[in-house]
Amino acid sequence: MSASAYLHKAFLLAGKADPKKIRPNPFVGALVVSKEGQVLGEGYHEKAGEAHAEVIAIKNAIIHGADLSTCTLYVTLEPCSHTGKTPPCTDLIIRHSIPKVIIGSLDPNPMVSGVEILKKNGVAVEVFEMPDIVALNDTFNINQILKRPKYILKSAITLNGKIADRFGESKWISNEQSRAHVHEHLRARADAILTTAKTVIRDNATMNIRIKDQMEEELNLIVFDKNLDLLKKENHQLSIFYKRNSSKIYLVTDMAETTTLPNVETISIPINDGKFDLKMLHKELIERNICQVLIEAGGSLNASMMEAKAIDEIYTFVGPQILMDNSAINQFNSNQIQTMDKAVKLQLLDSMTIAEDILLRHRVIH
Amino acid sequence: MSASAYLHKAFLLAGKADPKKIRPNPFVGALVVSKEGQVLGEGYHEKAGEAHAEVIAIKNAIIHGADLSTCTLYVTLEPCSHTGKTPPCTDLIIRHSIPKVIIGSLDPNPMVSGVEILKKNGVAVEVFEMPDIVALNDTFNINQILKRPKYILKSAITLNGKIADRFGESKWISNEQSRAHVHEHLRARADAILTTAKTVIRDNATMNIRIKDQMEEELNLIVFDKNLDLLKKENHQLSIFYKRNSSKIYLVTDMAETTTLPNVETISIPINDGKFDLKMLHKELIERNICQVLIEAGGSLNASMMEAKAIDEIYTFVGPQILMDNSAINQFNSNQIQTMDKAVKLQLLDSMTIAEDILLRHRVIH
Repeated sequence: MSASAYLHKAFLLAGKADPKKIRPNPFVGALVVSKEGQVLGEGYHEKAGEAHAEVIAIKNAIIHGADLSTCTLYVTLEPCSHTGKTPPCTDLIIRHSIPKVIIGSLDPNPMVSGVEILKKNGVAVEVFEMPDIVALNDTFNINQILKRPKYILKSAITLNGKIADRFGESKWISNEQSRAHVHEHLRARADAILTTAKTVIRDNATMNIRIKDQMEEELNLIVFDKNLDLLKKENHQLSIFYKRNSSKIYLVTDMAETTTLPNVETISIPINDGKFDLKMLHKELIERNICQVLIEAGGSLNASMMEAKAIDEIYTFVGPQILMDNSAINQFNSNQIQTMDKAVKLQLLDSMTIAEDILLRHRVIH
Repeated sequence: MSASAYLHKAFLLAGKADPKKIRPNPFVGALVVSKEGQVLGEGYHEKAGEAHAEVIAIKNAIIHGADLSTCTLYVTLEPCSHTGKTPPCTDLIIRHSIPKVIIGSLDPNPMVSGVEILKKNGVAVEVFEMPDIVALNDTFNINQILKRPKYILKSAITLNGKIADRFGESKWISNEQSRAHVHEHLRARADAILTTAKTVIRDNATMNIRIKDQMEEELNLIVFDKNLDLLKKENHQLSIFYKRNSSKIYLVTDMAETTTLPNVETISIPINDGKFDLKMLHKELIERNICQVLIEAGGSLNASMMEAKAIDEIYTFVGPQILMDNSAINQFNSNQIQTMDKAVKLQLLDSMTIAEDILLRHRVIH
């Protein structure tokens, strides 16, 4: 088997983790391979605070009687070189005299210099930057590099780009299966939904995770609510105020007010030029271990997040309809980008047919 | 082989014809099959005014020594029963005592009652309405039933449904391969492009057919030009006035004026409530053997054609861009459909990736 085939095997292992259990950590898979090419140990990082993939794979190899001084370690991510909740993996590799380490992607965390330390200690190191492996840790990489959550925008639009009619009605632009897809694939992986008080009050949606034949699951909710409208008594019957055990509603406001409502917290952020200081919000969310945020809102929030370069990926469900009305609500409510040469550039990641809807997935090129 | 398998074979034969050579006729393929299941004769309609598929298949079978009185005729379309440019095919079938005819789709032309006449004459008839076969003759069927051309709308839009920025600039929303696709697959099959004088003057595009490694081809052009702006001297240098041998420019106006410009013809149509009487236009185009029209225009013409239920199919090229400007030009410039429940319903036919563009093909459900 080639080095990239072993790395692919380690990549598949890495992806077995539940993304919400490992936050804020990356997906990592590791293999210990004998000089004859036999896999003697394997492991993946399963839960934040618990063993790293390399540790599990090495322990596993020792149990199988491996002579580590003749083995190669394959690991999807550059091994850590600093003491976090667990000791550095580079120490372990060096202590066991593993002569060669093959790495599937570099760690963007500036505190990690695993490659350098291993080389200094006489370990042969090869680095492949494998696109699939890098993409698997997109959220982690964005968290590390940009010090903010990964923001994913979800929209359901008509063929001509409208998210609702002029009266705000959007039931239903996308079909039932598309809506189920949002729960199973987008909400299930997100740490929170980001929306506005206006949307919450108008739609009165529950904004939790509902997957067929499974228990309903809670999901954090971040609401732009400048005037703290959701704290008003008349809004306490809204569906988002379901009984929460493991999640919270975060109300983003520029006021200093706090609340005693259970599982509701205000996040006070300054407003500059009429807009929330998103850099402050990014920091507050990362501090709360909210690493991936799903934006489900109207055209104005979509536009302001895009203008602040705070959308990384877009999932667009295109329904088989046309709303022929210039006053119908646009996916982005803005007048900021007036010429073709300044258009936001996207990269098409993939597309799929969901009955008569099409789901397009784009990466935003900032 | 099953009946549907023979019909499929006949369908593939039918599709060999060049659509522009058979206009206004349908695609038709036919097979003569012996009682042992052997194909003894085959044929397809190749050119308007020349032999029908059944005639060719039967002649072919006779040459191969078939005993027609024991054979089955498979034909993709109900055989004609009236004398057009050629005698009725039902006569031929009856004369040769073919005992059984299996038909892939009915002819919507009310003058055709082939099934009835064959049955009356003791021929066993089976009719399958095969979706692929019906779809192959979509243009013919629309021509017959609605007495108008089939109108196909082509748009290149940003992800959020804009066809140009507020200044009218649209270069380039879709990529080079998508634009090549328009020439090869849309213009090549259309009998004319429909556009407006405004678009012609602004873009100064040639609007002919350019396919890589092939000679440029002419294409009829229908221009909504109320004031006959294109007849003005200053516009005679526009690219559409290339030397034409086999095509024309049709200027649609409510004026009675004619022109002596070579290969330019005015079509005078009344204007009611500020809009051209499209029913009159449909008739004029059918009389000129223009059976399929490709609409390449701006949001206003797109909207008025849609409002008149004169768009049958939409090809949308979605480019990987976002124009965040509410004043950018919409695919449909209209305020007519203000509520979700009145949205134009589409049927997704298929989609394909063209590099980073996505091409969506929808049928309009009127």
